[in-house]
Amino acid sequence: MEEQSTINGEQLTINKMTSLYLVFDFGGSKLTAALTTDELLAKQRWLGHHREFSPLAATAVTDLKTIIRLGRKLLAETGVARATAVGVSFGGPVDYQTGTVRLSHHVPGWENMPLAETLAAEFGCPVIVDNDANAAALGEHRLGSGQGFDSLLYVTVSTGVGGGWILNGRPWRGHETMAGEIGHTVVDPAGPLCLCGKRGCVERLASGPYWAADYEAEQGRVRGLSGKRVAELAAQGDERARRILQRGARALGVGLGNAANLVNPRLFVLGGGVAKSGKLWWRTVRQSAREMALPEVHFEIVPAALADDAPLWGAAVLARMKAEG
Amino acid sequence: MEEQSTINGEQLTINKMTSLYLVFDFGGSKLTAALTTDELLAKQRWLGHHREFSPLAATAVTDLKTIIRLGRKLLAETGVARATAVGVSFGGPVDYQTGTVRLSHHVPGWENMPLAETLAAEFGCPVIVDNDANAAALGEHRLGSGQGFDSLLYVTVSTGVGGGWILNGRPWRGHETMAGEIGHTVVDPAGPLCLCGKRGCVERLASGPYWAADYEAEQGRVRGLSGKRVAELAAQGDERARRILQRGARALGVGLGNAANLVNPRLFVLGGGVAKSGKLWWRTVRQSAREMALPEVHFEIVPAALADDAPLWGAAVLARMKAEG
Repeated sequence: MEEQSTINGEQLTINKMTSLYLVFDFGGSKLTAALTTDELLAKQRWLGHHREFSPLAATAVTDLKTIIRLGRKLLAETGVARATAVGVSFGGPVDYQTGTVRLSHHVPGWENMPLAETLAAEFGCPVIVDNDANAAALGEHRLGSGQGFDSLLYVTVSTGVGGGWILNGRPWRGHETMAGEIGHTVVDPAGPLCLCGKRGCVERLASGPYWAADYEAEQGRVRGLSGKRVAELAAQGDERARRILQRGARALGVGLGNAANLVNPRLFVLGGGVAKSGKLWWRTVRQSAREMALPEVHFEIVPAALADDAPLWGAAVLARMKAEG
Repeated sequence: MEEQSTINGEQLTINKMTSLYLVFDFGGSKLTAALTTDELLAKQRWLGHHREFSPLAATAVTDLKTIIRLGRKLLAETGVARATAVGVSFGGPVDYQTGTVRLSHHVPGWENMPLAETLAAEFGCPVIVDNDANAAALGEHRLGSGQGFDSLLYVTVSTGVGGGWILNGRPWRGHETMAGEIGHTVVDPAGPLCLCGKRGCVERLASGPYWAADYEAEQGRVRGLSGKRVAELAAQGDERARRILQRGARALGVGLGNAANLVNPRLFVLGGGVAKSGKLWWRTVRQSAREMALPEVHFEIVPAALADDAPLWGAAVLARMKAEG
């Protein structure tokens, strides 16, 4: 039974031989489901894509129900009975070997949830689960800025700072799927207190919400700022905003320079909202990383190419790996 | 032509089929050549072993001549016409792919020396060259404290602080053979000035000569101290020595904790003279690393097992890999 479909303006052949990858992304505030095939993956296109906001009162159970509903809807819309494999990007620490979520820092109830097992029972196919930074690193490596590079660290600088490694051309997750936590490396032990309890973590200095909080704390009157707004103020010449932005960029640069000395990757790929903070930010990050690294240690620092869908594309690559065994 | 030899009190069969590994270690001040076979490697025994001090006026040319002489002597003593492969541990940055030395921080004249090529012409067999920390990491992984662990960082804390990674059961050298430079990760940007030009590097705070220098600078009168002597004074209750030792141990612990968050290895193996500084040092290193690491990140920190010969054993493992293609 061969079927010619026109989806998103493209002619597609879907038959029994077509591998279908159903992918999910559990973000901090957004839930996404998407569907792709080998043919579409190579073109970076989705057969279908649905995104919903996770409500403030969300729990693991409600988020899981939403994702399953979105997945079923996608399959129904495309007339597909069954996905070949499911790939999942989860915004928090997971055990990659078993597909079990350790916890979520945003949504309650995720502790030790057997996510892969649950989705495998629901969709009747193999499921692979990774954390969002590792998935995004894989996405950037196969389809984005990291194409052709044998080693890289992907870093997302957003509400938090997380990272994922590609070493020897494949993901390095660490022995507990915890590798890449550059956000909680300490660059200034005399620095401000981080939520994690330590002082001077990269995340405490480089992430957007802390920029806003630091600006508000210094200014005294303003409220409701965002990291993006601080970057805009800096671009307009606001001295306080420039100082906070540069301090954050330097902290990230020190973290990257330390990572360069320690692991010697070829490339750093920076994504997330804060990476859109403009020239001063990029110049400061690059200069600071260069100053930290030994003269014999070389690398490039480049922007991510896949934007917010990087973890989702990585999940699709993971699903394909899983399908291929 | 089979030959039964008794060497080091052991019965050995050496015939045409026996693989013979000639290994060299270019240390900062010592030059070592040794010879082993598969049978002996498994027992951690050498067929022969010669060590000479490198004179203060040494250059790359004189050190190379000494090593070649030691190697020829070993082959002559054992009646072996030719080694199967040569493995080399070099105390400084090398290009692993080509076997070229980048430079030595101790001995002049090593810049861009084609070491593998030179030794291959001399000994008529394949040659593999790695830096000493990577070689030692491999030695500890195959024959020492790291046996059975899939991921580890070996750190030597001595006159300098260097490291080597094992990830996925094999060496991770970085894209320029520069990975593992934990000594030049910064743990305190307000700390004292390091030789590399940065402030508060792990090496500046944790290595033996700096302990001695800091003690002498504070005390004013004493001269000619060593890191070992500072550790002895600390063990005797000398408050200044205890403070310097603990500051160094904390700096190393912060570096290890950061490395744990960033790469999530299963194990840290600590070697070198400073790692013999006693209970207070070990307790402080372990506690400080634990405090830096995220609660979800777990690891052990253990002493190296192979002592000063770790790089040499690693070189033997490398030579065997080279012989096996």
